[in-house]
Amino acid sequence: MQSFEIDKSDLLRVKAALESDDSTLQEVLQQYHSSEIAIIFEKLEPEERERIINILPTVEASGVISEMDEEHHPAELLVSLTPEKRSEIVEELDYDDATDLISQLDEEEQKEILDEIDQEDASNIRALLSYDDDTAGGLMNTELIKVNISYSKNEALEEIIQQSEEMEEFYTLYAVNDHNELVGILSIKDIIKAKKQVKVDELVNKEFVYVKADLDQEEVAKLISQYNLTSIPVVNDTMQLLGRITVDDIIDVLQEENTEDILKISGVSEDEELAGGWRDAVKSRLPWLVINLATAFLAASVIRAYDNTLDKLPIIKAYITIIAGMGGNAATQALAVTVRRISLSNLNDRQAYVTVSKEFLVGLTNGAVNGIIVSMVAVWYDANPLLGLVLFFAMTGNVIVAALTGATVPMLLKRLGIDPAVASSIIITTFTDCIGFLLPLWLATKLLL
Amino acid sequence: MQSFEIDKSDLLRVKAALESDDSTLQEVLQQYHSSEIAIIFEKLEPEERERIINILPTVEASGVISEMDEEHHPAELLVSLTPEKRSEIVEELDYDDATDLISQLDEEEQKEILDEIDQEDASNIRALLSYDDDTAGGLMNTELIKVNISYSKNEALEEIIQQSEEMEEFYTLYAVNDHNELVGILSIKDIIKAKKQVKVDELVNKEFVYVKADLDQEEVAKLISQYNLTSIPVVNDTMQLLGRITVDDIIDVLQEENTEDILKISGVSEDEELAGGWRDAVKSRLPWLVINLATAFLAASVIRAYDNTLDKLPIIKAYITIIAGMGGNAATQALAVTVRRISLSNLNDRQAYVTVSKEFLVGLTNGAVNGIIVSMVAVWYDANPLLGLVLFFAMTGNVIVAALTGATVPMLLKRLGIDPAVASSIIITTFTDCIGFLLPLWLATKLLL
Repeated sequence: MQSFEIDKSDLLRVKAALESDDSTLQEVLQQYHSSEIAIIFEKLEPEERERIINILPTVEASGVISEMDEEHHPAELLVSLTPEKRSEIVEELDYDDATDLISQLDEEEQKEILDEIDQEDASNIRALLSYDDDTAGGLMNTELIKVNISYSKNEALEEIIQQSEEMEEFYTLYAVNDHNELVGILSIKDIIKAKKQVKVDELVNKEFVYVKADLDQEEVAKLISQYNLTSIPVVNDTMQLLGRITVDDIIDVLQEENTEDILKISGVSEDEELAGGWRDAVKSRLPWLVINLATAFLAASVIRAYDNTLDKLPIIKAYITIIAGMGGNAATQALAVTVRRISLSNLNDRQAYVTVSKEFLVGLTNGAVNGIIVSMVAVWYDANPLLGLVLFFAMTGNVIVAALTGATVPMLLKRLGIDPAVASSIIITTFTDCIGFLLPLWLATKLLL
Repeated sequence: MQSFEIDKSDLLRVKAALESDDSTLQEVLQQYHSSEIAIIFEKLEPEERERIINILPTVEASGVISEMDEEHHPAELLVSLTPEKRSEIVEELDYDDATDLISQLDEEEQKEILDEIDQEDASNIRALLSYDDDTAGGLMNTELIKVNISYSKNEALEEIIQQSEEMEEFYTLYAVNDHNELVGILSIKDIIKAKKQVKVDELVNKEFVYVKADLDQEEVAKLISQYNLTSIPVVNDTMQLLGRITVDDIIDVLQEENTEDILKISGVSEDEELAGGWRDAVKSRLPWLVINLATAFLAASVIRAYDNTLDKLPIIKAYITIIAGMGGNAATQALAVTVRRISLSNLNDRQAYVTVSKEFLVGLTNGAVNGIIVSMVAVWYDANPLLGLVLFFAMTGNVIVAALTGATVPMLLKRLGIDPAVASSIIITTFTDCIGFLLPLWLATKLLL
């Protein structure tokens, strides 16, 4: 099954099986893992998906639905099923997956489904629905293995076997006192290796990392990655154990946050679905373009202000676009490095200072090198050494400003509590365009007219 | 320990302790997790780091060194220690961490260290050193728990306890035959719950996901994330078990790949260290700027070609920079969405076609809206309706071209086997600048002169 990828032949095989009877279809589906069927689903019609879900055993059907990408609307598929089928599926799902799915429905549909299913499951899901999607509470699973610290080794082992009935993977066990307060963690290895008489209390590690339910998911991801954890317990304000977050859920968080970062830094709204429709894409991108247009008029007004210089020195026209453009490029570079650095760890004052000094030197060097190239073109191609000098200083100056802006703007925004990825690029484009036009035109006016 | 962050006070406390005697320093250090000391290390001098490593118990010392970011040169720190101390540390490290560390040294230093340490450890590390850094083999750990399929429950349990002596976390166990060929996987839960007489062979799951040692790490990450695995076994061509990759190693891979993506798309070389020095930053960014400068001259030549038009219609100068700039913005948006999509999953022909059609509609709509705004300014501010018409068509056309280029260029590059993130932005900038200048100037020459 190495580097398995669903390709066209798989899709065609399933499509063909959909044309024939149920038993043939079942046979073909058996060859696929539920996460693979979820990928095949992306290319199928709603009725075809429904037929497959109805034909699959409940375990696989719920696997497929929980593996489907949100943008292919698994919740709508769920709603389209019969009440019996969807209850079976929801009851089979892990609580966190069921909650994610149900949270995509409107209130009435949520109520309908929760009323149909087992009432213990329903109350667990209702509790999870109360947490924000992007917090530890929204991410956690309530299924975990907990043992009372007063248990002996054998009592604990029995508990583990019993509680693990419905669970998939676990390694860390949580030790609680009689008030369900988390007092320590231990591993299954600790239990297996322990002598018979030993109590859980003697085995637990009382120094452990935990998070409160309202902590932002990005912070949870940072902790898990910093401490190399496979799971982290979630508690309320009085240290009562609510659930656990496992590292595989964190992978999804990281991919999501990284997609958002790359979109925001490019002037796309963070919730644009990568494979979404064109109307949504317009909605997500047009506002940024219009804001950019407004700032572009600002930069254009610099050109208008120097109409006289441009009339007398028409040769500079082509050069100012080069200088402004190079400023934009240099600023984008500094911005990408700084935004990425901020999103991996917070910078303290000294690090911020070091970053700014570094970007100044980078801007000076890169600006000077490009300035020399541009000025050589002006000297040799346009035979105008004085123009070359103006262009050299303008290019160097603009690239320095660009590098400094690219580094400082995101750090300032972060300190002001504004998302640095989202607002930085507009501020920076405006800045480098204005300075990129202003510097050569101003210098040319002073030195060449 | 919730959302623990090392701040200035921690640094000051350690700095102060460094001024006093060993026992005070030891006491202060005891309050920190090794991953926290690794963060504090970023702000300390080499001699200070060395003193702390020498004073820490071996387990913590090796923890700190393995947690240190590569850009703070843990390998140099290791080399600076006495042969005894560094042998202790290397022997304490997981094989994959030890290999990562040693691979950063030059050949002579590698040999020196490997000769000093336990020879079984050394031969394991030598074997791992032979794999490429960014393949499954380079990523895997050779420490895992394997049981022979012929074992009974109790034999297996004994093996697990013995083999887990030096291991941290495990949940999945690997079942091998007498030739060390991987034949199945099972969980520790399966063993605990099994009846006494049961053999491993009856418990294993023979359908499992595995990878070959030479598979690229990005593909490993995709598999782990697609199948929600906590670990994946690594085998050679004859299915012999070589090691396992755990999900926490994948988190580092994902962060690394995502950093590279965001840097490359912004014209920064993928190996620029985010917190590196200014000389490295110049080396990583200057080549891209110079290439961009060359393409900027190409765009500027369009302006020179229309000198006559610009002379007769000076008002259009400010507008062409706006139209070219908006094209650049629209292209960046389409590029970010497409590059991110490609890096999360490969697009088939139909998806590629749908993407291009979508971007055409997005470009048409966004171009037309911005075109209307620009033409209204031309009509009202410059009282030139015909200029407005020219600008409307130029803006719409350029934004359509931009959106199409932003989406098709990365897909084409990907099919040609070129990294789409790295080369796309330059091609796109050149294209949108040239078309952004050409369209309004050509239309103006035809319609307004």
